[in-house]
Formats: sequence, structure tokens, C-alpha cells
Amino acid sequence: MDKATLRRIDNTLKHLTKVSDIESLHKSTTTLKDEEIPNVKLLRSMLDGEFHFDRDRLRELFQSSNTFNENFLMKPITTDEHREQTLQAVSEIIQLQLVQLSDMEKNPKKFLSWFESISMCDPSISLKFAVQYNLWGGTILFLGTKKHHDKYLSDIGSGKLLGVFGLTELGHGSNVNGLETIATFDTTTQEFIINSPTWESQKYWPGNISKHGKMATVFARLLLKNNNSSKDMGIHAFVVPIRSGESHNNKYGELLPGVTVRDISLKSCYNGIDNGGLSFKNVRIPRENMLDRFSRVDENGVYHSEIPSNRHFAMTMSVFFIGRLCLSLNALCLMKSGLSIAIGYAKNRHQFATTTKSKKEIPILVYSTTQLRLIPYIARSYALDCAHKVIADLLTNNGTNTAKDVIHSYSSGFKAITSWASVESLQLSREVLGGQGFRLCNRIPMLLNHADLITTGEGDNTVLCQQVTKFLLAKYHSVIKSSEPSNFKGELAYINSITSQPPIIGGGGGGDHSLTELISIPFHKWLLEKREYILIKTLHSRLYGRLDDELIEPNTERWFSNWNQSLPLCKMITKANVDRLTQSFFLQKINQLASSFSADTNTIYLLKNLCRLDTLCQIQKDLGFFINNGLLVGESIWIQLQDEITHLSRDISPHAHLLTEAFAIPNKFNPLQKSIE
Amino acid sequence: MDKATLRRIDNTLKHLTKVSDIESLHKSTTTLKDEEIPNVKLLRSMLDGEFHFDRDRLRELFQSSNTFNENFLMKPITTDEHREQTLQAVSEIIQLQLVQLSDMEKNPKKFLSWFESISMCDPSISLKFAVQYNLWGGTILFLGTKKHHDKYLSDIGSGKLLGVFGLTELGHGSNVNGLETIATFDTTTQEFIINSPTWESQKYWPGNISKHGKMATVFARLLLKNNNSSKDMGIHAFVVPIRSGESHNNKYGELLPGVTVRDISLKSCYNGIDNGGLSFKNVRIPRENMLDRFSRVDENGVYHSEIPSNRHFAMTMSVFFIGRLCLSLNALCLMKSGLSIAIGYAKNRHQFATTTKSKKEIPILVYSTTQLRLIPYIARSYALDCAHKVIADLLTNNGTNTAKDVIHSYSSGFKAITSWASVESLQLSREVLGGQGFRLCNRIPMLLNHADLITTGEGDNTVLCQQVTKFLLAKYHSVIKSSEPSNFKGELAYINSITSQPPIIGGGGGGDHSLTELISIPFHKWLLEKREYILIKTLHSRLYGRLDDELIEPNTERWFSNWNQSLPLCKMITKANVDRLTQSFFLQKINQLASSFSADTNTIYLLKNLCRLDTLCQIQKDLGFFINNGLLVGESIWIQLQDEITHLSRDISPHAHLLTEAFAIPNKFNPLQKSIE
Repeated sequence: MDKATLRRIDNTLKHLTKVSDIESLHKSTTTLKDEEIPNVKLLRSMLDGEFHFDRDRLRELFQSSNTFNENFLMKPITTDEHREQTLQAVSEIIQLQLVQLSDMEKNPKKFLSWFESISMCDPSISLKFAVQYNLWGGTILFLGTKKHHDKYLSDIGSGKLLGVFGLTELGHGSNVNGLETIATFDTTTQEFIINSPTWESQKYWPGNISKHGKMATVFARLLLKNNNSSKDMGIHAFVVPIRSGESHNNKYGELLPGVTVRDISLKSCYNGIDNGGLSFKNVRIPRENMLDRFSRVDENGVYHSEIPSNRHFAMTMSVFFIGRLCLSLNALCLMKSGLSIAIGYAKNRHQFATTTKSKKEIPILVYSTTQLRLIPYIARSYALDCAHKVIADLLTNNGTNTAKDVIHSYSSGFKAITSWASVESLQLSREVLGGQGFRLCNRIPMLLNHADLITTGEGDNTVLCQQVTKFLLAKYHSVIKSSEPSNFKGELAYINSITSQPPIIGGGGGGDHSLTELISIPFHKWLLEKREYILIKTLHSRLYGRLDDELIEPNTERWFSNWNQSLPLCKMITKANVDRLTQSFFLQKINQLASSFSADTNTIYLLKNLCRLDTLCQIQKDLGFFINNGLLVGESIWIQLQDEITHLSRDISPHAHLLTEAFAIPNKFNPLQKSIE
Repeated sequence: MDKATLRRIDNTLKHLTKVSDIESLHKSTTTLKDEEIPNVKLLRSMLDGEFHFDRDRLRELFQSSNTFNENFLMKPITTDEHREQTLQAVSEIIQLQLVQLSDMEKNPKKFLSWFESISMCDPSISLKFAVQYNLWGGTILFLGTKKHHDKYLSDIGSGKLLGVFGLTELGHGSNVNGLETIATFDTTTQEFIINSPTWESQKYWPGNISKHGKMATVFARLLLKNNNSSKDMGIHAFVVPIRSGESHNNKYGELLPGVTVRDISLKSCYNGIDNGGLSFKNVRIPRENMLDRFSRVDENGVYHSEIPSNRHFAMTMSVFFIGRLCLSLNALCLMKSGLSIAIGYAKNRHQFATTTKSKKEIPILVYSTTQLRLIPYIARSYALDCAHKVIADLLTNNGTNTAKDVIHSYSSGFKAITSWASVESLQLSREVLGGQGFRLCNRIPMLLNHADLITTGEGDNTVLCQQVTKFLLAKYHSVIKSSEPSNFKGELAYINSITSQPPIIGGGGGGDHSLTELISIPFHKWLLEKREYILIKTLHSRLYGRLDDELIEPNTERWFSNWNQSLPLCKMITKANVDRLTQSFFLQKINQLASSFSADTNTIYLLKNLCRLDTLCQIQKDLGFFINNGLLVGESIWIQLQDEITHLSRDISPHAHLLTEAFAIPNKFNPLQKSIE
């Protein structure tokens, strides 16, 4: 055995001797000395942030109103019952008047905070808002002009006018640019005519289709007459009524002529949402129903646009990043809910005794297997929570407008990494609960199924990873081929200051990394920056740097083949990018908190340990890379790193309950806070 | 860029030039030259194995009988409806008379093959059999004697006498040795009296409790009078009637006096099973109801046992490995079902064009992201399938009886690794299906929820990893401290022949590993053996090898602390052990097939590529270990390995459909084989 391992074992034993025996280690999960207890109020104030009053009002509503009871967890309920209950819940949340639809644009920080809070209850409810506000409302707000705002926004915000986001089609999920729905213009009646030419072109999935929606924003290919032929002007958005007013038989109205709707039946999640398929046959709408912020068709059928046609679709889509961040926060909240439940269980559930003599069973939270299933994800939640808050700050801060492409990259990357982390975490929370984890009443399997949707909803994560990578690659390429090929800016500015050797910490310097170094935050930062840089450089040289005389032209089939075989690098780059940003943003928030007058050293110390643990876990997932590239050095670094993670998790575990208490999930949504049966 | 990477890119381009362009790569997923097509019949005959007639009869039944329609995927059905349908399905399978209950002991290979096949339909059905045959029937078969066999086995096998496996208790899930139910003996009436002293001591989870079970095998602590006190003789099993015969109100009978049952409501899976809680108050049963294979109580209340009391419980439990293997096969079958569905989708679903000029969308199976989500798990299914077959051979082969502890270790390790792989694979299959993956009618989310149960059912995987590790560690320890500390036997015999340098292959030899080496099966074998050996050695020196004068005594609290902090190594060791065995067993089956007269080189070549891909993927998951220990050497081995995995997946992808077709999942259970909507 090498020296480092021996030292590590000595440390372990010392630590355990100090707390004298396992029984006291067990006790320490519930009773700590006063001076060791972190300040749960401080943690909660950090997580709740500036809109904590709004969050508390929502929590009170969830706890007090029966509408937020999750009946579907106790017995199979009909889809109709679930949908009506979801709609009722939406209406009760609206009545609190905490946000305006326009906050998506004017105060995104407030809107995001609100959205995260509503994700605590049955996830169908927050998704119903995503449909109604972000998507249906968002199209009117971001793609419409004053006439549309005046006519619709108030009724959309109040929930009176429920609507559909008609973008994706059955045949073209992620490839929205390939959609087939057609809009033509009839100058004689001054109407657009909407048609779904094929079965595959039906609008597919969006909520509010199958039952509640009165209108839809329909994205269609605009075909305008051009002599005897017609010209495809690209994709544009139109407001199309799909249901009549309330009728005798149906309070949500009857389908209008030419409109066909079908229900897509049971799903593993979000059954409170009336997803469906929607298609059109010669449906006529007045000219003013075109959402004309970027382009319009005049009375004579002539097209006018403010932006070049090749950028039109990208511009149209770029305004929807807020929805992606909402879903990312949704995934984060599901993860927090699961961790709250699992920690409550692990603290109270006793299994096995420590020795063959003793019969007294100990709480499963004492086992390193349980700690490793949960504590790293508590760290991840805190880190990602803070990172999302910094992004929300960037969206909102006046003056320092962060560029749209940066925000697009952030929202894509964080949605991908957060939703994958949420699924992983909920799977492990489920495993910690053992058999109890399958009972729907314990919520975890329900949370897991819902988190899963977010890995492909609002953009398949693997596609989003390609977008992040293309953004970073383009930035990198433009510098490399410029006159100053080592002067990186903006998102890549960090590259300029990466040192070739790691920062020297404590007793380190040359040779193997010391234990002090392994948990050093500046060292972690260096590792994360190095990784991202090396990965981008690697991909770049694969795609562009082969041989100067044989440069592969982008967007050709040869380029595609090369790109296709490099897709694993896109996922790695996105992970590297998000990990680096997460550490940096988490530290930013910790430092902000540390400088506040209410901060105490215990809490700040704990938060820094969470940051260490989170980064180490991300490094471990890519260990081969770090060792292979000479960034992590040491004869037994593989086990040293595991030991650090195990020990940090153990050291944090007595605080696990406080850390999840700070998530402040209402008791109603934490079945195990009552009693375990 | 280093030379290896350059060479790799050249190879990529060459390959793509050879198939001339992406369009033909696309076509190749559906049309291959005749001579390139592997023999699907051969693949299927390998997977179906010697009991292929039984498998076909089951497939015919599933396809033809409406009882096997999965109605619960289309609309919420009541728990009662689902349970009755499950019971009816069980009855129809029994009517085929393919296996006998006693085959669990006499012909486990046949029983396991049958169990895997019934896992194709609604998983509640196979679990109902696990409850009725493996657990309830198993206790009578393995723990009872002739009088019990004669009285019960025939009715259990025919499904007439439904029963409960009353082992686990609410308060003591994995720690079954800590159960609290009590059995005392009354000499005057010659009866045992069964009691559940606490709420936590109720028998919890087992199927057949809440509705169908007439009797239960109840594991209880036997307390025998000893002068004025009573002596705890340890855990023994008793047959306890819990319901009367059919009554006017209830065809499954009324609960008997002293028996309390509760239902545990909706779960995320297996809702066709009537899981529940079961407790007893002074329930009296005749003396002969004690299952007395290993020990008995005579008329005078005197205890007799054939085995020492400290080994009694372990012996009692050791006979149930067959149930664990059944669940492992269940997980494998769920994974295969998911892959069949996902490959069908990925082959037909078109998204995006390859170039900006082309509008023709290509099947998503062409994207390396899709290939990497599915192909490695096809490889894993084949590898694990063959490994389970070899284990079944070991169970059945006359003469060469494999030791019980080896089989226990195999069943524990393979259940853990297979169920985790199944969950990972189904998650990725779900992601490939995008939104379609959430529709219950497409089965994948249902399969995923069920596979998840297997990660903690029949022993929490992390606990099983400890059992495998303890087994290997004990074998290792006994050799190390023996007079011949380098003469390993049995499960560890492989250590004797590990060379210090890797086998030299092709152009290799010294320095970085060549590409030829990276895909070399003997090299993989060397890597897998080295890893397992180093891991066991590392753990051993942590636990025993510190300082001779300070050897920590096993099962003390200090030992526990050390063990607890080393638990991550248990998971790594189990993974290493199962990976090594899987490669070896897979190759064994491939070689068997290769020597059969019907084998063709294409099919064998494809199977060997699956073996390469599977091993490389397992190596990649532990890449840090391999590089850190100097086993994998090369400046850019991290990306070379990824490239090999990417390229093998691409090369196998045109055969993906045939490979999953060979799983022969009935069309009824493959919703996308009809049409995708």
C-alpha cells in the first residue's frame, strides 16, 4: 500500500476515534454541538433569494388548499379529473398575482424564482404554466406587436384565454426547421389559410391541445404567390382560433370547422396536461393574426421583413430561452424534492448493527453507500441553484446586457446538465428508499418520471450539447484564425490566464498531488478550465486543423461525417463548460453571502465543502481525461479521489437534514416527514 | 494533434469514402449486401437456447390471448382489474405445463429459460410467478420435507393454492436477520403460536398478501421454553394459513382470526401484484407446519438441528439464489424489450438533413449520439445473456457441482450489475424515443419503472456488492495468509496466470497502445483480470494489511468504520468481477457457436465485435483506474478509446435491427413494429 493511502486510513481512524464510536456518529446526524450547527435560516435565505415573500405565499397556498393534494398518487384517477384539478391549481396560483406574463421580459429573475417555486407541487401544474405563459403567452409577447398584446395578453395572464404552442410536428421533433404546416395568403378576403398537408405535419405534443385550448400559435411555412408559382418565405407564426366559446355540451367549447384534434393518451408523467395532436384543413384567419414583430405581409400580399431570411428562424426561436431555463429550474426543484424525502428517510430508517455483538440498528445515513447516493447531489443542487441565480442576474441586470448567444448557450447547457443530474439523483434517492421508493404516495417515482421528460423536452439534451459546442467552437475558431490567435474574449477569456502548472497549494509542489491540493478550490478551478480548453482545442483540430490544404468545408457531407463521429466530444465539452461555470457561479454566491453581515463561518465553511464535493464528483466522472492529460498526478490518485469524496460526504452528512430543510419543501409534499410506515 | 488521432480521423474518412456518402450509410441500416448480413436465425437460436420450443409456445400464447393485452397502458384501470388480469395470465401460462415447480431444483436451466421468456409480457405476470413459485413454492420445496411437499407442492404449482413469502418486515428490509416476528410452542396443544410484537414487525411487501394468498410461509424467531425463561433459537419458517376457503362475499376467502392485512396502495410498477402488510396476533398452527428440513421441534418442545445455530440462517437463505437469477433475467429481458422498441424507432424516425443543401432527413440511427445510446447496450445484452446461460449450465451440470458460495456470489453480482445496466439502458432507450418515450402505449417508461425495482428488490444492489466482495476477499485472505501465498484457487485462479506485461498483439510492443491492441480481446481479458486483482489487493491491504501489530479485529466497531469507508471499493470489485466473468462467459458461448456446423463467419465476427464493444465500454467507465495503474498507456488514450467505441457502434449499427430481431419479442409487445404515430 502506498503512503498516501496509509495516511488516509490513519486519518479515517483518527476521525472515528475522535467521535469515539459509531453510535455517536449516528447521534451526530441528529444532535450536533451548538457551535457546529450551520445556520439553516441563512441557507434558506440564500436559496429563496430576493423573492422569498413570493415563495412563502406559494408554499402557504400549496399547504392549505386541497387543490394541491396529489390524489393521483393514491388511486388511479381519470385523465379528466387530473386535468381539471391541474387547471384549478393554475387558477389558484394566478389569483395570488405574484407575477405578470410580461415579467418574462421585464423581470425574468422574478419570473424564474416563481417558476421554480411552483415546481414543488404536482409537476403537471408548473408545466401547464410553461404551456400557457412561456409558450402560448411567450409567442404573443415576443413575436407579436402591440395589437396582439392589447388583445390577448391580459386574458392569457389571467388564464381566461387558454392556448396552444403549435411549433413541433409529429414528423419533425427536434428538427423544427423542417416543419410542413403551410400558410398561404388570399388577397381577396385578406385571410391566411392554414393547412396540415400530411399526417406527420400535425402539431404534436403541446399541452392545451386536447381539451382546454381556445387558440393556438401555429408555426407554418409562409407560401406567397410569385407570378404563377409560390415562394416559400420560411417559418412564421399565426394566431389560429381552434375552439368556439363555451357550449351547452362543453364548457371549453367545440372544435371549429377544419380543426382536428386527437388525444395522445396516458404518459408516464404530466397526465394533468392535455397533450395532443392538432391539424388544419383550410382554416382561414384574418391578416392581422400573423405575429408580425419581425416580418409582415401587406394587403397586397407583399412580404416585408426586418431581418435577413436566413436568420429569421433563429431570431424567432432565440426569444424562448426563458422557457428552457424554467424547465431547468423545474428539474432542479424535482431533484431537491427527492433529496428532502430521501434524507428524511435515511435519517430515520435503521438497518443492521455495526458489530456482531450489538443488536442496535443504525440509521442508513451512516453508511457510506447511502451518503454517496445522496450527499453529492445535495452539493450539486446547491451549486446548480446558485448558478441559475447568477444566470438570472445576468438576464435582469440593467446596463450589462449579456449577449443573446451567451444566454442561449447557458440556457441550453444548464438545461441539459441539470436535467441529467436530476434524473441520476432521483434514481439514487429511489434506491435509498428501497421498496418504499416505489410507492407512489412517497412521490419519488413520480418525481423521477417527470424529471426524465426534461432530458428531452425543450430540446433533446444531446442536440443542446451540440448547440453549446458550436457556440464555443465558433468563438474559438474566430480567435485562432485571427491576427491575435491567443487573445481570447468573452466566454473564452478564461483561457488567457490558465497557467501551465497548477497553482501551488500548501505542502504541494512537484510530483504527486497532496491531499491539501486535492480539496483546494483554486486547484479545482485550474482543472476545470484546463479540461474545457483542451476539449475545445481537440475538437477544433479534428474539424478544422487537419491539413491546411485539405480543410473540410463546413456543412458538406464530409464535414458532417466528421462532426457526427465527434459528437461524444460535444457532450464532454458541454459538461466541461457547465461544470466550470457552476463552480465559478457557486463561489460567487458563497462570497456574496460571506460578505453579508448575517453570515457565520460554519455555514460558509459548509457551503465551501459542498462546492469542493461537487467539483470533485464532476472531476471523478471524467477521471480518465484528467489523469491521461497529466492534470491529476499520483500513484493512487484514483482511490485518493474516491476517498476524498467519501470523506467529504461523510463530514457533510450530519448536516444533510438541515441542508435539505433549507429547500423548504412544504410538509405536504414530503410524505416521510409525517411518519414512515 | 497527435499522430494517433490523425490516423484515426484518416481511418474515419476512409471508411466514409468507402461507403461513398451518408445516404448509403443510411441505406445500409436497411439494405446490406447479402454476404454482409449476419444470420439472424443463428443469433436467435443462440439466445433462445435449448428450450426454444418452450419459448415459442409462450410467444404464441402472449400473441394470441387477450389476457396478455396491456390495458393499463391505455387508460387508468383499477388495481383490482389489473390484479385479476395478472392472475388470469398466470393461470394461462401454467396451463401450458412447460415447467414444474421442482424444476427450480432439478432443472434450473429450464426454469430460468422459462422465467426469462415470461418476462416479455407485463412484468407483473413474471413477478407473480416469482412470488408463487420461487418464494412461496421455494420455501416449501427447499425448507420443507416430504410431508409438506406431498401436501402443498402440486396445488402451488397449479396455482390453486396461492401463497405468501413472509420474510421481510417493515422495520428490517435488507436486514432480514433482525426480524421480530415470534413463534412459541405450546406443548399442551402441540401448536406453534405466531405473533407480530410491533408495528415494524409486520411482514411487508410480498405479493399475494393483500388479496390472493391463502397461506404464508412466515419466518419467525423461535422462542422455546427453557426452565422459567425462553430461549431464542433463531429464525425458522412456518406455514400459516391466512385466509379461509372461498366465501359468499369473496372468492379468495376471508381473513382468519388473528390475521391482519393491509394494502400498500399504488406503486410505480407491478400494480398487478397485490403487495401488502401482514401481521399476526396469537395465530395457532399445528406442529407439523414448521418447515423442518434443517431443524425441528419434537412433541416435548425440544429442539433438534442438523446444522450449527450460527450457520442456520445462512443455510436457510442460501437456497434462494434461483430467485435472484430469475430477477436478473427479468431485468435483462426488460432491457432487450426496450432495445427492440428503440431500435425500431431509431431506424424509422428521420430527423435533420446531413447538409444545409439537402432537405432529406436521415434516420436518427445514423447519428453517433443515437448509436452510442443503444448499440453498447445491445452488446451488453448479448454478453449478459450468454453469461447467464453459462451460470445456468453450471447449476445444472451433473457431476461438476459448482460450490454454493460461488453460485451465491454469481447470482448476487450478476443481479446487481444486470439490473443497473437495464435501468441505464432503458433510460437511454427512453431518450432516443424523445416525446414518444413518455407515452405508456410505447411501453418503455413502463419497462423502465419495472427494471428499477430490480436494483433493490431481492437484495439492495449495494448490499449484494458487499456480499460478492466479502466472498472474494475471504478467498484472497485465506491464500495470502497460507503457506503458499501466491497459489490462488477456484474463483481467484485467474490471478496465477496474469502476466505483468500485456499480451503483445500486432504492431504493439512497448510504449503507447496501438489501435490493434485497443480492440484485442486477449488484451481486454488482461485488463479485466488486472483490474479485479488490483482492486481486491487494495481492499485487502486496507482492511488487513496495515501494520501487523495493529491488525484490526473483524466485526469490531473499528473494523466496521474502516469497512464502511471502503464500500465504494465493493461496488468496483463487484463490477470488475462481473465484467471479467461476462467477457469470459460470452466468449465461451461464441466459441461454442463457432464450432457448430451452422455457424457462418459474419455472425461470429459480429458477435466478437459485440464482445469487443461491451468490454471497451466497461473499461471506459473505469478509465481513470486503468490509466492511473499504468494498464492503458498512450498520450491520447482517453479519446482513442472513445473513438473505438464510437466506431464499433457505428460499424454494428447497420445490424442493430437484426440483433434486436433475434430477441424475438412478440409484435404485440413492440408497439412501434406496427406504425409510428
